[in-house]
Amino acid sequence: MCVPELQKQIAESLSRRQFLRGTAAGAAVATASFLATPVDAREELFRPTTLRISKVVDLTHPLPPNFPTFGGAQQLTIKTIFNLKDNGYNLKEWVINEHTGTHMDAPFHFSDQQTADQIPVENLVGPLVVIDIREKASKDPDALVTEDDIRRYERRYGRIPFGAIVAMYSGWDAHVNTPKFRNADDKGVMHFPGFSLEAVEFLLANRQVKGLFVDTLSLDHGPSKTFDVHYRWLPTNRWGIECVANLGKVPARGATVIVGGPKIVGATGGPTRVIALL
Amino acid sequence: MCVPELQKQIAESLSRRQFLRGTAAGAAVATASFLATPVDAREELFRPTTLRISKVVDLTHPLPPNFPTFGGAQQLTIKTIFNLKDNGYNLKEWVINEHTGTHMDAPFHFSDQQTADQIPVENLVGPLVVIDIREKASKDPDALVTEDDIRRYERRYGRIPFGAIVAMYSGWDAHVNTPKFRNADDKGVMHFPGFSLEAVEFLLANRQVKGLFVDTLSLDHGPSKTFDVHYRWLPTNRWGIECVANLGKVPARGATVIVGGPKIVGATGGPTRVIALL
Repeated sequence: MCVPELQKQIAESLSRRQFLRGTAAGAAVATASFLATPVDAREELFRPTTLRISKVVDLTHPLPPNFPTFGGAQQLTIKTIFNLKDNGYNLKEWVINEHTGTHMDAPFHFSDQQTADQIPVENLVGPLVVIDIREKASKDPDALVTEDDIRRYERRYGRIPFGAIVAMYSGWDAHVNTPKFRNADDKGVMHFPGFSLEAVEFLLANRQVKGLFVDTLSLDHGPSKTFDVHYRWLPTNRWGIECVANLGKVPARGATVIVGGPKIVGATGGPTRVIALL
Repeated sequence: MCVPELQKQIAESLSRRQFLRGTAAGAAVATASFLATPVDAREELFRPTTLRISKVVDLTHPLPPNFPTFGGAQQLTIKTIFNLKDNGYNLKEWVINEHTGTHMDAPFHFSDQQTADQIPVENLVGPLVVIDIREKASKDPDALVTEDDIRRYERRYGRIPFGAIVAMYSGWDAHVNTPKFRNADDKGVMHFPGFSLEAVEFLLANRQVKGLFVDTLSLDHGPSKTFDVHYRWLPTNRWGIECVANLGKVPARGATVIVGGPKIVGATGGPTRVIALL
């Protein structure tokens, strides 16, 4: 599979950033400093609970080969190996980039921490918190989830519970089959909402959150060149799910989600079935 | 990826079977006849419930490239595209046969019915029934789950609940890292346990079951040449999961499982994260 040109550019940009990190100037933001802090989620963020399940909601997009991608190029190819008529059964093979469709960013994607298969299974189940920023996202495609958005949520719905999964609901999943999902401008810069570094710092310092959901292509908003949220969140052994679907079909609080992430050894992430019980 | 020789042979054998189905002699077992029966599970097999969750158990094997396969040849290749040191982040690409690791057989695998992405999400969540046949499987690797095994389970644990997922627990997952998992003899015939056609007919006619689990490589036992269970179960819009792990860590009844199957459009199945709540 060809590597998209945009991804190459990003990789080069990040390589430079990585180089800076190795210098005195970059030391203050060195990955290692995150790992020693008490926010490392290597332990299970899970507590016993009672659920009344009356409904199951799929938070996963169907994934055809032409599902929109961060880099812009196709990241999934499906090949039929056997078919029912000629062979008596159907069987296919996929060539797939890990970061395609509704998918996980494992801690290892932007650090040397947990690969997808190493995440404790308890950290794949938790109460869902849905932060609705649709109004501002409809006016500004580069909108960010801020600390204020989180505090506003808590005033209305109560404190973010222990072991929660915090979702940005920007309404962007409605654009999944249109160019607006990537929303690239004339220079190729994308414009879609994401989490702010400030919001993530607040969550790391003050709440026990195990993962983030976004209904866009990235935890960072579209124009980001520095991927601050990726570099701050993932090295703490927390994960993210990008391209989450149907957040409008679950309540702001009260759903429990099960994150069916890949268990391929060494994976940096991968297509993930996300199921909500409510 | 090369297609394993054994798989080719199976495909040829099944093609002959498929041909027979098209003749008058084969009409009695034609796929179409299954679809008209009341056992079609196109509708959701789901009822509201209350769960007390004190534990999360992963029923998924870690999936390295050399995970044992039905055909014998490797079915997963992982390629590193970007790495943290040189590029600032880690990213990989997989070439993967859908039927690898702990994975789903969607109805479409052995019929023209639901592909993995078309299964109603309600049919991916249900109460788990664990039929323990370890004792006879330790004496006879070709052991089958029979109607008697199901009746014995029900006498002890009560009737199989509505919308259940029924698991064969043969103890075979303990062999996953050894040749005994495939257990091929001198002629290449495999020997491991599976469901009997009789047991599956009983479940279809008398219980409302949405899926089957096996801790082996196939719903049918190793020596099967005709794949009777696959051809009877899957065309009714029920699914199976093969290579399930850790069934010894969940109770015979009382666990609820969430089946994180793939949502790749048109998939005949695929690697699946299976999570039990108990």
